[in-house]
Amino acid sequence: MKLFKSLGVIIISFGISAIASDALVKKALESGLKPIPTDQKELNRLIDSPNNKLTKERIELGKQLYFDPRLSKSSLISCNTCHNLAIGGDDNIPAATGHKWTANPHHLNSPTVYNAVFNKKQFWDGRSPDLEDQATGPIQAAPEMNMDKDTAVKVVKSIPQYTKAFKKAYPNEEITIKTIGKAIGAFERTLVTPSKFDAFLNNDTKALNEKEKEGLETFIKVGCASCHNGIALGGSMQPFPVAKPYKYANIGDFKGDKNKMVKVPVLRNVAQTAPYFHNGAVWTLEEAVEIMGESELGKKLSKKEVESIVAFLNTLTGEKPKIEYPILPDSTPKTPKPNLD
Amino acid sequence: MKLFKSLGVIIISFGISAIASDALVKKALESGLKPIPTDQKELNRLIDSPNNKLTKERIELGKQLYFDPRLSKSSLISCNTCHNLAIGGDDNIPAATGHKWTANPHHLNSPTVYNAVFNKKQFWDGRSPDLEDQATGPIQAAPEMNMDKDTAVKVVKSIPQYTKAFKKAYPNEEITIKTIGKAIGAFERTLVTPSKFDAFLNNDTKALNEKEKEGLETFIKVGCASCHNGIALGGSMQPFPVAKPYKYANIGDFKGDKNKMVKVPVLRNVAQTAPYFHNGAVWTLEEAVEIMGESELGKKLSKKEVESIVAFLNTLTGEKPKIEYPILPDSTPKTPKPNLD
Repeated sequence: MKLFKSLGVIIISFGISAIASDALVKKALESGLKPIPTDQKELNRLIDSPNNKLTKERIELGKQLYFDPRLSKSSLISCNTCHNLAIGGDDNIPAATGHKWTANPHHLNSPTVYNAVFNKKQFWDGRSPDLEDQATGPIQAAPEMNMDKDTAVKVVKSIPQYTKAFKKAYPNEEITIKTIGKAIGAFERTLVTPSKFDAFLNNDTKALNEKEKEGLETFIKVGCASCHNGIALGGSMQPFPVAKPYKYANIGDFKGDKNKMVKVPVLRNVAQTAPYFHNGAVWTLEEAVEIMGESELGKKLSKKEVESIVAFLNTLTGEKPKIEYPILPDSTPKTPKPNLD
Repeated sequence: MKLFKSLGVIIISFGISAIASDALVKKALESGLKPIPTDQKELNRLIDSPNNKLTKERIELGKQLYFDPRLSKSSLISCNTCHNLAIGGDDNIPAATGHKWTANPHHLNSPTVYNAVFNKKQFWDGRSPDLEDQATGPIQAAPEMNMDKDTAVKVVKSIPQYTKAFKKAYPNEEITIKTIGKAIGAFERTLVTPSKFDAFLNNDTKALNEKEKEGLETFIKVGCASCHNGIALGGSMQPFPVAKPYKYANIGDFKGDKNKMVKVPVLRNVAQTAPYFHNGAVWTLEEAVEIMGESELGKKLSKKEVESIVAFLNTLTGEKPKIEYPILPDSTPKTPKPNLD
């Protein structure tokens, strides 16, 4: 009888939890949050591009180029310098700093490359339509890799393994800065990091604990999901700020486009991508959530609400793809020499 | 009969080749060249240190620290920035360049970390006895990672996974800059790259072709192996220059110790580690060999001899260990912030 009663209690408590979870999953999906699909084919379809069909050859070539510092003028900086896959896919400093130790002139923070495939636009001001186009920017930008595009092409063409790999990956295309960007983009499309939040949305109702579920509920209730939605929990262009002047507006000079639109940052792995905001002004998730409540939602969030949301944000830290560090093909006498000036 | 004759010819030609190879292997070993052992246990014994016994825990922790930019003041530079495992274990620029884009004040070139375990001393002037001690240098050097040693320790201690990993790897030692160096050294000890030259010295007589064998013979005959010997084909301290003033002595101001001793560079993977010499003054192996002939051996090598030696040097490009790019443990609010100044 005692056992029976105990079992009953267990069943009941499981029952309550399951119902609450189901309802929360429904609410999350209705508010626009989306899981990374568990089905690999479905995921492949999502991350693919009609203009850059993913193939093994393209991804592998892109991985090499992503890690290759010879695409920078100095030969010291690679894509991975500012979008370091070891530390959340970014650089963990306020303003991106590159060639000759020059900081981004607008004091812009490097966003994470993980899950950037789910962004609707690329760059903080959304000026780039996709990863392939984006990748060609920092290679050439003076305060980043500062590479003349013709020299970047010369570097690639001077290395026989690269020309062979391009021929296999893009048989009908010339090697240009655009095809270099396409290969890098192909690799970046694979940088997807499912977390326990996805398990939860995919109906593993025990994937989140009570505190984390409460956090998700608060996140939706106070309105965070109105901008931080979709698979990326971000990635669309939104007005900035919506409700109240942004507290650290004096740091950097981001203006966005004519309508002051800013790309909503991806929240996946956000616990690993401090400092926060377009100007990297804030170091803790608690302060970031508090400020967003004020400037975007016009709400003074309680300490409890902030903590609750942060508990949820921590569930977005995902499993990173295993990447073998590449051994890059050798330079040749024709390879342009590094130039540190 | 025809078949029998053909077989005979084959046997005879194999015979001749084998005898010549055997003699060359003998000559190479007698001149002090040594292979990387094929037997893993024998190799493990060779790369191990009585003061830093290699364990899985130490190597894995060291790998993480090796790739961790948070050990630099800026949080932008890791050991791998200047000793990049993707491009021959060095940076392929003339003078090492680090914090605030400052070049090494003596215009010293970053040597490769691959096979550096076989060096008798570390640094160009041999001031460091081993990899464990060496690793603590660039972390603190102003033009490199420019990290205050106490801050480096604070970074590590602020990250629970690191303190746990240190406890497992070095259970009876405090976390200090020395134990950080020990862990990094443990990882670096594993960076050994056997090549077809080792196969040849280990009696695979067909591992080198005729041109390469001729190159090895020339390398020994003209005297290169008198300094470039041992497993590293280098790594000992030698007078510099021996015979004739060095052609690019005006670049940089390396003096070495009182007796003008310089560490003989490792020749393994030398085809991947341009530019050459302590000041990175020379970009081609041909010029490097020619200059070494003059300044170290007092010989004007013929073009044929230079080409022959270069053919041999190319056989020293070895197979690199497969390394999974680490996902580093997260910073915490206690982790000291990056400082780019």
